[in-house]
Amino acid sequence: MPKRTIKPFRPIYPTPAGLITSVDAAGTANIITLGEVHNLSIGKPVIVGIAVARPRHSHELIRQCRQFVVNLPPADLLEKVDRCGTTSGRDLDKFAAFGLTAVPAEQVRPPLIAECPVNLECRLLDVQTWGDHDLFVGEVLVEHVDESALDGSGRVQVEKLNCLCYVHGEYWTLGRRLGTHGFTRAQA
Amino acid sequence: MPKRTIKPFRPIYPTPAGLITSVDAAGTANIITLGEVHNLSIGKPVIVGIAVARPRHSHELIRQCRQFVVNLPPADLLEKVDRCGTTSGRDLDKFAAFGLTAVPAEQVRPPLIAECPVNLECRLLDVQTWGDHDLFVGEVLVEHVDESALDGSGRVQVEKLNCLCYVHGEYWTLGRRLGTHGFTRAQA
Repeated sequence: MPKRTIKPFRPIYPTPAGLITSVDAAGTANIITLGEVHNLSIGKPVIVGIAVARPRHSHELIRQCRQFVVNLPPADLLEKVDRCGTTSGRDLDKFAAFGLTAVPAEQVRPPLIAECPVNLECRLLDVQTWGDHDLFVGEVLVEHVDESALDGSGRVQVEKLNCLCYVHGEYWTLGRRLGTHGFTRAQA
Repeated sequence: MPKRTIKPFRPIYPTPAGLITSVDAAGTANIITLGEVHNLSIGKPVIVGIAVARPRHSHELIRQCRQFVVNLPPADLLEKVDRCGTTSGRDLDKFAAFGLTAVPAEQVRPPLIAECPVNLECRLLDVQTWGDHDLFVGEVLVEHVDESALDGSGRVQVEKLNCLCYVHGEYWTLGRRLGTHGFTRAQA
């Protein structure tokens, strides 16, 4: 297949959309939509990263509060996800404006978004500048998952989450399962 | 929806699968499959991150070479993607063993994988330890894309890439397009 070189711009996809909640000193909560959230350390401990542009209101809130919650939105929340990403918490209360429900977290001040099936309470470990974004690195303290998305042994059933992907400026659904990691070992 | 707290493990999904190429001092190339690659700085400059476990052969190669290539595999390469993730380059030449084609890069020593529609040549900027993985941060120097995945103005057509997602230990396809970022502004 012949190839062409192009000017790179956000070249990795598809990525997992996230709604990030934070609070100001008075306890007023905000939401920012990010096109991706990163797993950095998968188990011991669990650490995630979010890249936030410096002018964003949430950038200031997370720096000050040193806590944030990652909420993974389902695809049927699409319109609210987009609205949270195209408005600023400096101008409006996004929970009230878009009809989202704030639920108190267990260990951090920013709230969980009830309409998201997965919520990760995080404490900030570090902030690093990489080009046009700052990477906020956070340890996951508590994970909440909708009961309806868990199987009998408490394992997340991905097909129940109705995941929302971000792809090159577009929102996409997840498709179909092709196989399990390591399936070729069983074939050998 | 009632929620339950669970022990977190790699809690973000779906994530973009990547095949990362590197070389040793003698120029022998290796491939590692990662369940995710991270956009860190989206435009000025373009910076990506990859989290690699310390015992992996590619960890040593990338540290020494200070360059790597991110190759985004299509879903029809699934079996080879899985094999590259369950074997070690200490034991075998994955290009030869799995029938993948190495193509010289323009600005770095690790090769591109011809069978992947997107290849990103990267130079290492930093390595950071976060828990059970090290984060390799790299600046994207050159992006190569299959001609067949570009439209007339040179823009990537996502539906032509046949993206492969990694989701909680499983491989999935991408589904269908739901909308474009900012679509709710047009509705307002």
